[in-house]
Amino acid sequence: MEDHVNAFVPGQRMQISGRTGGPLSGLTFAAKDLFDVAGAPTGGGNHDWARYNPLPERHAWAVQTLLDAGADLVGKTITDEVSLGILGENPFDGTPINSAAPDRVPGGSSSGSAAAVAAGLCDTALGTDTGGSVRVPSSFCGLYGIRPTHGRLDVTGMMPQAPSSDTTGWFARDAKTFARVSTVMLGEAPGALPTKLIIATDAFGFADPEVAEALQPMVERLKAIVGDVREDIMAPQGLSVWSRAQRTLQPVEAWETFRPWVEATNPRMAFSVVAGLLNGAQIPAAERGWAALMRQEARARLRHLLPPGTILCLPTTPFPGPLRGLPLPELQPLRDRINCLCAQGGLTGSPQVNLPGATVGGAPVGLSIIGGRGTDAALVSVALAMDEAA
Amino acid sequence: MEDHVNAFVPGQRMQISGRTGGPLSGLTFAAKDLFDVAGAPTGGGNHDWARYNPLPERHAWAVQTLLDAGADLVGKTITDEVSLGILGENPFDGTPINSAAPDRVPGGSSSGSAAAVAAGLCDTALGTDTGGSVRVPSSFCGLYGIRPTHGRLDVTGMMPQAPSSDTTGWFARDAKTFARVSTVMLGEAPGALPTKLIIATDAFGFADPEVAEALQPMVERLKAIVGDVREDIMAPQGLSVWSRAQRTLQPVEAWETFRPWVEATNPRMAFSVVAGLLNGAQIPAAERGWAALMRQEARARLRHLLPPGTILCLPTTPFPGPLRGLPLPELQPLRDRINCLCAQGGLTGSPQVNLPGATVGGAPVGLSIIGGRGTDAALVSVALAMDEAA
Repeated sequence: MEDHVNAFVPGQRMQISGRTGGPLSGLTFAAKDLFDVAGAPTGGGNHDWARYNPLPERHAWAVQTLLDAGADLVGKTITDEVSLGILGENPFDGTPINSAAPDRVPGGSSSGSAAAVAAGLCDTALGTDTGGSVRVPSSFCGLYGIRPTHGRLDVTGMMPQAPSSDTTGWFARDAKTFARVSTVMLGEAPGALPTKLIIATDAFGFADPEVAEALQPMVERLKAIVGDVREDIMAPQGLSVWSRAQRTLQPVEAWETFRPWVEATNPRMAFSVVAGLLNGAQIPAAERGWAALMRQEARARLRHLLPPGTILCLPTTPFPGPLRGLPLPELQPLRDRINCLCAQGGLTGSPQVNLPGATVGGAPVGLSIIGGRGTDAALVSVALAMDEAA
Repeated sequence: MEDHVNAFVPGQRMQISGRTGGPLSGLTFAAKDLFDVAGAPTGGGNHDWARYNPLPERHAWAVQTLLDAGADLVGKTITDEVSLGILGENPFDGTPINSAAPDRVPGGSSSGSAAAVAAGLCDTALGTDTGGSVRVPSSFCGLYGIRPTHGRLDVTGMMPQAPSSDTTGWFARDAKTFARVSTVMLGEAPGALPTKLIIATDAFGFADPEVAEALQPMVERLKAIVGDVREDIMAPQGLSVWSRAQRTLQPVEAWETFRPWVEATNPRMAFSVVAGLLNGAQIPAAERGWAALMRQEARARLRHLLPPGTILCLPTTPFPGPLRGLPLPELQPLRDRINCLCAQGGLTGSPQVNLPGATVGGAPVGLSIIGGRGTDAALVSVALAMDEAA
């Protein structure tokens, strides 16, 4: 199938067949170019990364798991450079096209995986989510997407960014495929439906009013499915304060991850990516100390808010995908706002699923559900129930 | 002639004939890819610069001047990205080879121009010098090279970096060619020889001891040519203080120059180049204010030290070219030391000529002569006299 949406890394289309007779037989998948595929360079969205790193001899755990379950690997997808980006614009490989809204960015950093699934070039695709890199493209492209509980899945063979926030995620166009893949990846069938729903008023208030309005029919459906509903604030310290903590911890770790490479090889990178790395290099220790404490507070808050059986819903992003090719000064405030609705993922490690189904001005925007740590399978059940109720 | 030293920008070899019967007839020249050549993109050492800028319709003043004088243009040469670099390593186009010391960097940012002349691929070549970009590659490659008085030559069609320091310069392998080209570029024949020589003890003390020792025979020759000799300190406030002022003024201006481009287009750049640009973006106004005052002090010092007829000599660089491919943490202190011997150029605008003729461990290192503003032609005379006395 022709890659008319620039989803795949040039030269990285492939055909690696999964085990016959597995639960995912008949499905095709792609892997973000952060996952090792034996014998193929892991590019990481940067033209100098592979030169510095050995050619993988083994598949990443996530790739091997999908192959073992019978899915066929069809290629490696474009990513924001070294996973540092939330909009999906990569000046080296180009920006994948968001089939659902071709004038908008696809979201990133798992941009090519989302674009490939959205365009029907494969059934599912692996992404990674550190600060929103599965959730945001899911929202912008109108897909199911999951950021699982941090630490639950084996990240062997997945290029790290900020290990205390890094997770493996995946996309699908429909709820049933999403549930099939999730069952394999989580090693757990969809669980019991939650019985209590919290509507995060701070997050809905933070989103564009048209987004909050567009998501209302989905929230009503969710209310009908879950039953016991109340409104509450997710982040009493402030979404911007949680975001600030995450935007302290994540860049500091990313700098620790990539510093040896950039110092040894002075790689070619987009201006904005270097700016992000150097931001991490310059964060004072006192800020890092504070952010670590705020992370503890955020974790305590979600533990309190989300006992087993309770989920929370919020807009995944405060707006649909911005237009492609905006200048950097216009992008930065957009990135900052996105982070305010995504920071809880990296900060607390809670699982989050994006549910598609709404649009603003023709462009998709998603509704997210979050559960306590380890409740990933219950969120998958909600995705199935929401689809059946649609 | 084959470009076996990677001096030329790929696809930018050319044959544009100079006027017949001019004073430079029979000479060939190359132009650093910061100079406009009508109909050829000005790349500036960065693969995204030309896309943002219109195709030049006219030759730069310096190119036109050499063509009018009869020299033939043979190509455009590799430069450090947007002239921000002093070592000549460009991860996009590769590092030109220093024929005089192939394991060493050629120096930059006029790396390709120096490499082309050193390898005999042309007789002379245009460079630019803002913080040392002609002087340093002259020293490392063993060439004659000039940074003329700031503001003396028309910079039309030359890509700017830090306009209050930017100059047009040129290289040659031998003193006679250097003098022929200088006569045309300066519009002035070699002038009367200076009669007083100052040996800058602070600068000689700052260079590696082996460099100071290797330059001694040249200093002795210079003493014999000029006559009245004394020792003095060039920078009473400190070479590192002058350097600090220049490393404040220059990056601030460079950020002003390139900010609209990077903000509009998020270009691909080497990590180190972005780091340099962002350094300029973050310099506080109070530092800039201080640096502007120190520039006034430095200018006053050289006016006092260098009345007409007096020149000063110093090592051009504190060491010969460093090894190619060193990691960034090892390069930064080397860059900082180089700047301590080069800062006076941008800071004061005085003309400076590098004289080749010494080596350390087989690698060239040059002796510089500096005169008061406007005395460029006298420095050219010294170059001729030094050659005759050799």
